[in-house]
Amino acid sequence: MNILIIGGGGFLGQKLARRLIARGELRGRQIAGLTLADIAAPAPLDAPFDIACTACDITDRAAMDALLAPGFDAVFLLAAVVSSHAEAEFEDGMNVNLHGVLNVLESLRLQGRAPVLVFTSSLAVFGGEVPDPIRDWTIPNPQTSYGTQKAIGELLVNDYSRRGFVDGRTLRLPTISVRPGRPNRAASSFMSSIIREPLNGEEAVCPVDPEFPHYYLSPRLCVENLIRGAEIEAADLGQSRTMTMPGRTLTIRQMIEAMTAVAGPEPAKLIRFEDDPAIRDIVSGWRFDYDPAKALALGLEADASFEENVRYYLEDDRPT
Amino acid sequence: MNILIIGGGGFLGQKLARRLIARGELRGRQIAGLTLADIAAPAPLDAPFDIACTACDITDRAAMDALLAPGFDAVFLLAAVVSSHAEAEFEDGMNVNLHGVLNVLESLRLQGRAPVLVFTSSLAVFGGEVPDPIRDWTIPNPQTSYGTQKAIGELLVNDYSRRGFVDGRTLRLPTISVRPGRPNRAASSFMSSIIREPLNGEEAVCPVDPEFPHYYLSPRLCVENLIRGAEIEAADLGQSRTMTMPGRTLTIRQMIEAMTAVAGPEPAKLIRFEDDPAIRDIVSGWRFDYDPAKALALGLEADASFEENVRYYLEDDRPT
Repeated sequence: MNILIIGGGGFLGQKLARRLIARGELRGRQIAGLTLADIAAPAPLDAPFDIACTACDITDRAAMDALLAPGFDAVFLLAAVVSSHAEAEFEDGMNVNLHGVLNVLESLRLQGRAPVLVFTSSLAVFGGEVPDPIRDWTIPNPQTSYGTQKAIGELLVNDYSRRGFVDGRTLRLPTISVRPGRPNRAASSFMSSIIREPLNGEEAVCPVDPEFPHYYLSPRLCVENLIRGAEIEAADLGQSRTMTMPGRTLTIRQMIEAMTAVAGPEPAKLIRFEDDPAIRDIVSGWRFDYDPAKALALGLEADASFEENVRYYLEDDRPT
Repeated sequence: MNILIIGGGGFLGQKLARRLIARGELRGRQIAGLTLADIAAPAPLDAPFDIACTACDITDRAAMDALLAPGFDAVFLLAAVVSSHAEAEFEDGMNVNLHGVLNVLESLRLQGRAPVLVFTSSLAVFGGEVPDPIRDWTIPNPQTSYGTQKAIGELLVNDYSRRGFVDGRTLRLPTISVRPGRPNRAASSFMSSIIREPLNGEEAVCPVDPEFPHYYLSPRLCVENLIRGAEIEAADLGQSRTMTMPGRTLTIRQMIEAMTAVAGPEPAKLIRFEDDPAIRDIVSGWRFDYDPAKALALGLEADASFEENVRYYLEDDRPT
């Protein structure tokens, strides 16, 4: 079993790589090699099998052909230009999120090996005039270029799979919390930082009111679901390779209560509520009511409660 | 008002051109020029304004830039590799239906004029595990490469419109009946030929049983709806530029009864029912239950009855 992670330098790619190394197998076969590719070469990891870390530009078709030339049994395609970047720089988003995905798919099609391909999409594909809850048969009606490009990727993975060019499965990721690292400029940044910073003994600002609801998944279960997604039998996927990864709808208040239940009353005191109309306007348009029936039926899981998300952060990611 | 029809040599492009010539105006403005482009130069038409017919390959970006260089106020993008072709020749379908549409959109984006763009999609975007009726918020889950490429075009037209690069509107066409001309190799060919050939005094074979239901629109109302689609105010389109063009769900029996009501009992005697399992297998997977609420609210129309479709064929298309 030879595995490639495109986007292996990101926080999710790194966590996935570590989990695959710990498991040692995928789809019932021992892992013989793992390649991590990203726009800058990912830092090397220790593994009891061959591991390679390589710099590779997804927008360069010849480079992708060379990357894929050894032939892989499973490819995780996580690389993307993120939402705010794709909105600010239209051409960058199109080049990476549309033409980059096409480069991977075309290269795999012409290779003729039809590997398992796990593609990460996003709940950003949803928006506009669609009823709640968002079901497996709700139209992707994205209101961002990022969501548009991801929705196109979903369609391409479906058709390349239907034709037997790849054995694809697309997983739409909920908002990941508690995301490790530092705050960034994403509108969703506070959805992790209001938990992460207080657990680190630092102050955090919440720009929305405590009753703001959103849909979350921990990094640990996200990685677990990516692996389960790779392990689903093709025959069980039916007439669409796309599914929404299960998450939980929670308010800010519920998240803070879960933190307090796990870590005591002190961290919550470090959160300051400070209304930010610019952020509120963006995130109040996001959907939070999902029915991920297909993914649940195929064995993917949400966190049992947000207390789990808090514990996972403390166990996996809190700086020591 | 300068208008371009890309795919102006096809039967729909030709009918649209004739209708625009007869109207003389679009969006309340007099038509000053009409250009018909297709892979082979369309036959010239008489018009009381400038008219040009030109050969142009949509897969050639430089050729599309040259075609679009004069600057148009409205562009109808009808050109496509059809369903059976896109399924048999994957690369042809991707080149014309995906990269060709991207060529038009990119050329228009860089021009910065944001013309009205009417893009024709198809009910072939629908399929797989989705509940009836198919509504405006039902996911496109295409089971053909053609449907996939059209669904991608819908997403692109939406996003290029949202960003102000074009003022797009996408209309998903029902099966057109009575289509003029001769039978072709499309699986849907019989849906016109069982009416058209008998009205021409010729025999026709129906490969499915009389209770087979499908969703139809006449060429005349299809053209009318394309024009109405161009005339909708952008502000009325909401958060999606895509809609299903209204049609009527009819069985073969109902279509034949309508023909008899209009043309007497003789034509129906020319139809021979001869089960064709290959065709039946294809068309029995097609969806026929649609709720085109958005298009109806915006003033698009279905035929009042299939008797209209029969009359329109006799008035507009029967060879004399």
